[in-house]
Amino acid sequence: MSSAVEFAKANGGRFVDELKDLLRIPSVSTAPEHVEDVRKAAEFVASGLRAAGLEGVRLIETSTEPSAAKQGRKGHPLVYAEWLHAEGKPTVLLYGHYDVQPAEPLDEWKSPPFEPTERDGNIYARGAVDDKGQMWMHVKALESLLKTEGKLPVNVRVIVEGEEEVGGEGIAAFVREHGDQLKADAALVSDTEMFAPELPTLCVGLRGMIYTELEVRGAATDLHSGMYGGAAPNPFVALAQIIAKLKDEDGHVSIPDFYDGIEEPTADELKAWKSLPFDEEHYRKTEVGSTELTGEPEFSVLERTWSRPTMDVHGMPGGFVGAGAKTVIPAKALAKISFRLVPGMKPEATFEKYKKYVESIVPKGVTAEVRMIHSGEPIVVSTDNEFIAAAKAAMGEVFGKETVFVRGGGSIPIVGDFVRELGIPTVMMGFGLPDDNLHAPNEKFHLANFHRGIESIILFLDKVGAA
Amino acid sequence: MSSAVEFAKANGGRFVDELKDLLRIPSVSTAPEHVEDVRKAAEFVASGLRAAGLEGVRLIETSTEPSAAKQGRKGHPLVYAEWLHAEGKPTVLLYGHYDVQPAEPLDEWKSPPFEPTERDGNIYARGAVDDKGQMWMHVKALESLLKTEGKLPVNVRVIVEGEEEVGGEGIAAFVREHGDQLKADAALVSDTEMFAPELPTLCVGLRGMIYTELEVRGAATDLHSGMYGGAAPNPFVALAQIIAKLKDEDGHVSIPDFYDGIEEPTADELKAWKSLPFDEEHYRKTEVGSTELTGEPEFSVLERTWSRPTMDVHGMPGGFVGAGAKTVIPAKALAKISFRLVPGMKPEATFEKYKKYVESIVPKGVTAEVRMIHSGEPIVVSTDNEFIAAAKAAMGEVFGKETVFVRGGGSIPIVGDFVRELGIPTVMMGFGLPDDNLHAPNEKFHLANFHRGIESIILFLDKVGAA
Repeated sequence: MSSAVEFAKANGGRFVDELKDLLRIPSVSTAPEHVEDVRKAAEFVASGLRAAGLEGVRLIETSTEPSAAKQGRKGHPLVYAEWLHAEGKPTVLLYGHYDVQPAEPLDEWKSPPFEPTERDGNIYARGAVDDKGQMWMHVKALESLLKTEGKLPVNVRVIVEGEEEVGGEGIAAFVREHGDQLKADAALVSDTEMFAPELPTLCVGLRGMIYTELEVRGAATDLHSGMYGGAAPNPFVALAQIIAKLKDEDGHVSIPDFYDGIEEPTADELKAWKSLPFDEEHYRKTEVGSTELTGEPEFSVLERTWSRPTMDVHGMPGGFVGAGAKTVIPAKALAKISFRLVPGMKPEATFEKYKKYVESIVPKGVTAEVRMIHSGEPIVVSTDNEFIAAAKAAMGEVFGKETVFVRGGGSIPIVGDFVRELGIPTVMMGFGLPDDNLHAPNEKFHLANFHRGIESIILFLDKVGAA
Repeated sequence: MSSAVEFAKANGGRFVDELKDLLRIPSVSTAPEHVEDVRKAAEFVASGLRAAGLEGVRLIETSTEPSAAKQGRKGHPLVYAEWLHAEGKPTVLLYGHYDVQPAEPLDEWKSPPFEPTERDGNIYARGAVDDKGQMWMHVKALESLLKTEGKLPVNVRVIVEGEEEVGGEGIAAFVREHGDQLKADAALVSDTEMFAPELPTLCVGLRGMIYTELEVRGAATDLHSGMYGGAAPNPFVALAQIIAKLKDEDGHVSIPDFYDGIEEPTADELKAWKSLPFDEEHYRKTEVGSTELTGEPEFSVLERTWSRPTMDVHGMPGGFVGAGAKTVIPAKALAKISFRLVPGMKPEATFEKYKKYVESIVPKGVTAEVRMIHSGEPIVVSTDNEFIAAAKAAMGEVFGKETVFVRGGGSIPIVGDFVRELGIPTVMMGFGLPDDNLHAPNEKFHLANFHRGIESIILFLDKVGAA
């Protein structure tokens, strides 16, 4: 066992305590009332990197970037650190994010979302696995190497963002405008999950997305439904009519040309997916918990969530949402609607098709406006490079099992930016589990995976350095 | 001019000041946090009735009624008063309500909803016209008569409720169980509006309603739309599919047998409606403000809002409604849905048809539950009695114009209870205007109508007493 791994094992309890301190900071990036908490989390990460022995640690203000200034955007800072003394060795860019999703609905949490609580070998808190816990593994792997070897086996740059949950525009702009400051040979991202407990997994593809708002306006002001019901347009009814026309009852998106140009997974990939330990009925019961699964019946569940695009509605603000009754015809209604995209689809082009289609089906008496909130491109990572090989071997060693390749249904837009702007492959080595309640109440991180993650990253960096 | 009318004119300023004090009390009956304010408003009304010279003034706790106890319902009190010394004369039951609708959305009010403000001859506040202002006219008409004549021209009972905006179960139960305490020959209700400014109007029909909640549940917990989108059911999409099947694009409700048994207006009534000063384009522009009007194209706007049933969605709570983006597939979603009913339709029967239909169209992967929140029966008032005649004459005199008969699209469930339980006709003499923003931001009451209302009620009582 390497001395770095020994150090990580000996200091595991402290690492968890530090993670708890970080989890106590409600760094909800979408909520204006948490803007100071988000900054506090950034500073916590910067201190952690400094304490680990990294150099050049600093916060980078994304709000002062030219593109942010142009958009009038006030962003959350990036945290940067580096260690560049491994002459002749490759440079690895470590990426993570310190921002988290909102914790609502609060009443469904068994312990408070920002008071990390250990139960059954897990740590429960918003951000436990997505992504504070996984990002902290990176910091602790670097610390373990530096504190024991006094150096790293490779050159390292670390970039940690605070806007991943709100579209990551700040880091995207930084990568675009200052890519030279992130020059590396490969990126390591730990923001995905393992296919099953104990099964080492590398994610080699991600869906993209467009997140939109569809606003419908009818009357000029809220009206009494008794007096005007039957003559005044109802924006919620109109929204329902539009949404019902966006997706048919078999889960096919009805927007014309929506599926055009989609790149299918290779026959090899589809074959590998078929051999994964996946029990659809178990998945339905324990992960989804609905009476039936939905979606395109002609595709498998893994295809439906990895390589097929889809549409979801996240909420419909407006009107009367209190307890009891209010007989109002609201003047306007909103729907938060997103589409997941797969390779071959472009966010802008998909948005245009969607917008054009909505405009063609606007019901009588209302006007509709479609707004893009944020977007990310779908990507597929090449698997034939030394970095994927090192990651596959590292995880396989730690877990004692062959590492599998999967895709992810979610979006990590930065991975696309790394490919496009920096021209480097990304290793997505994640340690979450399918039941970690990502973005939901009772988010958790399996503590054994936190420790195995640190060990895997140490081995990965060692292997890349030794190659 | 009668001395009571002179008194009302001389004291009009004070009457308005008192009304303002009442309007400052946020007696929102649907909001648990305002339960004490609702009681404060009840006590204010009781004091006003006592000061006017009424007798037997008391609060009646609806929550202690046997039917309320059975339902475990904690209700808002009724206010009762009487004056029964006009031997041989008819008894008129004066009805009003002191509770108000919620004021949301607050940011659309030009002046605070519970800080009554005069602008352009109007008083702006939540409850100004619905119904505090109109109820206060009753109190002030009685005061004007008692302070000048020392007596009333008829016997009077007054009942003022605090649950009109939440279904009026308390008063319905009281009328059912203690109808003898409200024994009268006719009821006077001022909770409607005039067809046009300066046009004296009596309302002789009202739509009924059922107000429901439709809850749809998909996954057992909120899920990440990236990971599960394409396989997990989306309750908002399911709700949209259901709602889109409740009403077609021409505004016809699609529930089987929904229109069965509807009693059409008489040919005379339809003819009278055609001669009313109604300009559809003006109505669309100034009252509704939408690009087009909606609803069943084969019926006129007055029919669509007075004598045709319809369906409206008031809000769709659940999911993510904050600013920004949250990529969640919510476990559940709710829609607040009401139906307006017309004569020939029964609330319970309509609810059963609706429930059965929804159950037959529940999309794959979700479950749906339909709950009744409250209901009211549709009614049509007979016009050939001395009370309607007296009201027609009184309003005609005050406004100097022939009084017209119209119907109302909204629900005043108590009017049905008066017909059914007490066997008495109801005179619906209202002084609101079509642009009074009932149930909406910037609710107002035209002050000239407040004063003409008091005068009309004085004349009405005089005429009933003289008949």
